[in-house]
Amino acid sequence: MSLDWTHGKVEMAHGGGGRAMTQLIDALFLPAFDNAVLSARNDQAVLPAPCQKLVVATDSHVISPLFFPGGDIGSLAVHGSLNDLALAGARPRYLTAAFILEEGFPLADLKRIAASMARAAQEAGVSIVTGDTKVVERGKADGVFITTTCVGEMLDDQSRGVTQIRPGDQILLSGTLGDHGMAVMSLREGLQFDSDLMSDTQSLHGLIEAMIVAVPDIHCMRDPTRGGVAAVLNEIASQTQLGIRLEEKAIPVNPAVQGACDLFGLDPLFVANEGKLLAFCPPEQTAYLLATMRSHPQGEQAALIGEVSADYPGQVSMRTTLGGLRRVDWLSGDPLPRIC
Amino acid sequence: MSLDWTHGKVEMAHGGGGRAMTQLIDALFLPAFDNAVLSARNDQAVLPAPCQKLVVATDSHVISPLFFPGGDIGSLAVHGSLNDLALAGARPRYLTAAFILEEGFPLADLKRIAASMARAAQEAGVSIVTGDTKVVERGKADGVFITTTCVGEMLDDQSRGVTQIRPGDQILLSGTLGDHGMAVMSLREGLQFDSDLMSDTQSLHGLIEAMIVAVPDIHCMRDPTRGGVAAVLNEIASQTQLGIRLEEKAIPVNPAVQGACDLFGLDPLFVANEGKLLAFCPPEQTAYLLATMRSHPQGEQAALIGEVSADYPGQVSMRTTLGGLRRVDWLSGDPLPRIC
Repeated sequence: MSLDWTHGKVEMAHGGGGRAMTQLIDALFLPAFDNAVLSARNDQAVLPAPCQKLVVATDSHVISPLFFPGGDIGSLAVHGSLNDLALAGARPRYLTAAFILEEGFPLADLKRIAASMARAAQEAGVSIVTGDTKVVERGKADGVFITTTCVGEMLDDQSRGVTQIRPGDQILLSGTLGDHGMAVMSLREGLQFDSDLMSDTQSLHGLIEAMIVAVPDIHCMRDPTRGGVAAVLNEIASQTQLGIRLEEKAIPVNPAVQGACDLFGLDPLFVANEGKLLAFCPPEQTAYLLATMRSHPQGEQAALIGEVSADYPGQVSMRTTLGGLRRVDWLSGDPLPRIC
Repeated sequence: MSLDWTHGKVEMAHGGGGRAMTQLIDALFLPAFDNAVLSARNDQAVLPAPCQKLVVATDSHVISPLFFPGGDIGSLAVHGSLNDLALAGARPRYLTAAFILEEGFPLADLKRIAASMARAAQEAGVSIVTGDTKVVERGKADGVFITTTCVGEMLDDQSRGVTQIRPGDQILLSGTLGDHGMAVMSLREGLQFDSDLMSDTQSLHGLIEAMIVAVPDIHCMRDPTRGGVAAVLNEIASQTQLGIRLEEKAIPVNPAVQGACDLFGLDPLFVANEGKLLAFCPPEQTAYLLATMRSHPQGEQAALIGEVSADYPGQVSMRTTLGGLRRVDWLSGDPLPRIC
């Protein structure tokens, strides 16, 4: 019996390891993610050995709602672990995808999500080479959760990461803040659809590769996802015991996002992004790096937003547009849970 | 404020990317999975380049209940993807671990699970090098789901897999059937604890390495997890369009497992295992491979249970202890859902 892509639902048997699971994989995932390694249908993928150091990143995705302006859990799940990998200065090569499905989830939605994953993977030039499917009873999950793991190789031998950050480093942001978080938030709150509120979910590895070729000595790159820029910078300040100073007027925010933030009483610094990065750069190379970023489609609105110093160790502060200085503390959690 | 490991619960903030999540990671996962790559606290792991072909396997774990005789979701999550990787003839090197936690889940249980994962990883000689933590609202998950991805390298250049299986291949099973499934089933049904019903969850890479060194020409190895031996063999028969014939009297089953199967009306062929493997071997090498398996602690009860032929393509059948021949069909799903 063939699957009903219009009215069909996920059943417990689709996760049972038997005929129904094989049917779902054959009819949905193999054609959607079409490649020879996956189609070999083994429980693992055998891949060429990389020449450079290996890099691995993993992320579970539990976003609610599953579909939002600018993307869905499928594209987000590809971009999420792919960006985490690329930020080390690595080229993404392969993805694995593990699905936890709730019994009763519409097959039509699952198909749409798989197609979106396939498109995002293809755009990024990576293959989904192996995966897993589990089903839990109705009420024991929330539609679909997707865990992706990205495997790739370093572009060069440079060490990058939080431990490379030095006093004097300047902080570049690749574009506007808060687009993803406010697109999802507005949808949740049932606001009338505003076409200016769109998630920024995208794969950043092209921009990152251009940045590294231009300035191999970038000290660290991070993406401000859950908890936003405030969470990432506080984590870094805390780990390095250095101080971070931001310039409010330099931080790009879309007017529609700022408007939505004002409405909900949120600060864009605390809102999640899914297609932006922060780079810590030695000051003498900032101008060239910023020019490189701005000449890339994913960095047109890049800006120098702050710097690192030995003063106020462990703290993040911001010079406001009014000229005052305020502490940017980090929150315990995220004002917008399940944003990714 | 430090975490309360006795009465504390998972809160939404523990997945929020902020201070609470950092605290949970610092206090629980970093010390439990203690290694330098993880402790660098980046969003990805940078690892030495492997010399041989790269192998990757991923599995989500949604077992219920989380703790069972012989293991828990933590050890199972390590063994699951590690075995999938090793079965290609690969040596496991690294694991990633992504947690989806339900709000309100006891921190004490999470700590116990992390300790179990750490022990299982250490026993297998692999490091948990990167991970992710998400939290969803109460009622949107079921305690904890763990997705692991294992990365390793091929032990040699031999191709193994379903496409290598040939008519005449003999089928070896590494030990008794049904131990994992019946241990979990008995617990679910509230049967009085029978010390003979214990999950077989274990890492098989030691046995696999010994087998490959002895007989590099093993054609294919698979582990009979969800859906048991019946599901794996039917999937293989269907893919290869070859026939598979089993000998019932050759199949090892623990008496306690057989008793529990009789009680629940189940057939051990359909019950999940988490520490057993099936090997497809050219007939002239079977005796040596079987002797090798039996001399390894994880293969003491290994047995030759059947063979592959060109007859009855796509079908699995079994000569019963009474001398008859019966079809071993595969089920749509698994008689025991959420077994792994």
